[in-house]
Amino acid sequence: MKEQQLYEIIARIAPMNVMAMEASEQYSNTLTKPPGSLGKLEAIARQAAGITGELAPDWSRRAVIVMAGDHGVCEEGVSAFPAEVTPQMVANFLAGGAAVNVLARQAGADVYCVDVGVNAELADHPSLRRCKVRPGTANMARGAAMERTEALQAIAAGIAIVDELADKGYRLFATGEMGIGNTTASAALCTVLANITAEDAVGLGTGISEAARKHKIEVVQRAIAVNEPDVADVLGTLAKLGGLEIAGLAGVIIGAASRGCPVVIDGFIASAAALVAGKLAPAAIPYMLASHLSHEQGHRKLLAAIGLSPMIHLDMRLGEGTGAVLCFHFIDAALLIMREMATFESAGVSNQ
Amino acid sequence: MKEQQLYEIIARIAPMNVMAMEASEQYSNTLTKPPGSLGKLEAIARQAAGITGELAPDWSRRAVIVMAGDHGVCEEGVSAFPAEVTPQMVANFLAGGAAVNVLARQAGADVYCVDVGVNAELADHPSLRRCKVRPGTANMARGAAMERTEALQAIAAGIAIVDELADKGYRLFATGEMGIGNTTASAALCTVLANITAEDAVGLGTGISEAARKHKIEVVQRAIAVNEPDVADVLGTLAKLGGLEIAGLAGVIIGAASRGCPVVIDGFIASAAALVAGKLAPAAIPYMLASHLSHEQGHRKLLAAIGLSPMIHLDMRLGEGTGAVLCFHFIDAALLIMREMATFESAGVSNQ
Repeated sequence: MKEQQLYEIIARIAPMNVMAMEASEQYSNTLTKPPGSLGKLEAIARQAAGITGELAPDWSRRAVIVMAGDHGVCEEGVSAFPAEVTPQMVANFLAGGAAVNVLARQAGADVYCVDVGVNAELADHPSLRRCKVRPGTANMARGAAMERTEALQAIAAGIAIVDELADKGYRLFATGEMGIGNTTASAALCTVLANITAEDAVGLGTGISEAARKHKIEVVQRAIAVNEPDVADVLGTLAKLGGLEIAGLAGVIIGAASRGCPVVIDGFIASAAALVAGKLAPAAIPYMLASHLSHEQGHRKLLAAIGLSPMIHLDMRLGEGTGAVLCFHFIDAALLIMREMATFESAGVSNQ
Repeated sequence: MKEQQLYEIIARIAPMNVMAMEASEQYSNTLTKPPGSLGKLEAIARQAAGITGELAPDWSRRAVIVMAGDHGVCEEGVSAFPAEVTPQMVANFLAGGAAVNVLARQAGADVYCVDVGVNAELADHPSLRRCKVRPGTANMARGAAMERTEALQAIAAGIAIVDELADKGYRLFATGEMGIGNTTASAALCTVLANITAEDAVGLGTGISEAARKHKIEVVQRAIAVNEPDVADVLGTLAKLGGLEIAGLAGVIIGAASRGCPVVIDGFIASAAALVAGKLAPAAIPYMLASHLSHEQGHRKLLAAIGLSPMIHLDMRLGEGTGAVLCFHFIDAALLIMREMATFESAGVSNQ
């Protein structure tokens, strides 16, 4: 994909249908409840109307897209787990044994994996898309994580999987990821693109010590100093400091918006991808739903920087799309409310 | 029920099975995820083990119990809705058209209503239990809301419905309520029993203005001044300032704990009932799960006073059990994780 083609896809993202959003709110206010009393469930219904033009669209076909990639910055000793865990966990996703598989089955969602940058050869599998751009990023603490064209290629892989699944009838997407070291890359992107300090952006990841966190902050600061990213050049910053799976997820988000489909943002890493997607394509932001507030400390500020507010507070810090897929139950709830609830008139209940 | 009988039931509440909780944590740490990374989902699994002694109990039979009662304090003009809405909404629950019905169907739960104090005669219905103690409380701003024996009778109704349903095989309960005026009674209970100021405890209910909120604060303060509740006498305080449905829910919570069943606490009013239940029966607290953080402003402090932490932040303020029943999806998720996830060994994933 050429850069120009990305901007053409972004240009196709439709604005929200404001008339349908107003109709959603009006209809919601006829239901047997005080106006607004279902809070964010009503906001989801309004957003669904804005995206589709329908009061209660059929979003029963849904997928979690898990982008996987490795990180050269692991050389710096930033993660609690060895990098070999990335391909091992992809195999676990494909076998259906990971947390995201369990939660996806519960929510009626299918799990697809995309290898955009795993540092191992993965065997064919019907749920795996092999789109390896390169076998992991370079160490961003010593130079650019990847080339600009590689970041673009990873974004294209995200757009392509959404296009494929949307063509098959999928209408609701969740962002998942696997990549040992990717909280470090996400923290670096946050620091530059959301103007959050490295101290605030760097957390304990999947379980490092406080001393290791100090080191991780220093690695992020070094990566930024070495790469001198231009905050106005989002794609360039993504290439210098990002990850292949983060770029891939930015593609998933832009792809979903371009196809008129909502996309649920998982935790810290997916939110870093959403930050990138929102900077490249502000029109994609209304297609996003924030799911959970991660235990990862930078997440609250990161979501606020995008303009999103999380619904689920479970202190999770696993990634994979686990928080996003839990949010599907709330989306279903919001649409069922619009479909099934009685009105004041039909139920004979006195209104204010 | 005599007061002595209540204390006998409370005395039967079993402590948590600590061995099973440790076994749950140990097993959870063999699953393919960093230890603790599923946050509160792991805590739910541990709690389930503590309650039942099993790693993944079968909690598929579940019910929302909606206690309904009217409030004499509505005379003071504290609510946005007229009191006639209480029986109208009970009819709506029984017909399956309210928000809680929609969300209960989604979560595979049955809805039961208990009339402990509705100011209207309700027709028979298979899902209605007619246990009217009196047709609504007296106006607490002028004297006691009810007699001590009446509060006890409402608690007994809550224990009785749980006993009936537990005998039928139900194993998981959610607390719901309907009672125009009941945020005022709940705020009064909070103020006395949780030492929260009336200013902090009184919110906008189902939708009053800021001026009306000021008036509501004054009504709560007047009710406390008139009734002179003794904070050490929980039952007496409940009788003076509570509601029949709040007493009924305290009974549901105590009843569930006495039957070894978990009970999910809904919003502000259910949490006031949980506060009362926890004061009467501290052993019942480990059987409670907090669900959502209500938009009602006193809720956060109220939950903290009980020692509970909410999982869902949807800005809801409807009651009925709507937040509690949404939490069932997370309980299911926690138990499915224990049943279905691969271990590091079975999946061949490197552990730390």
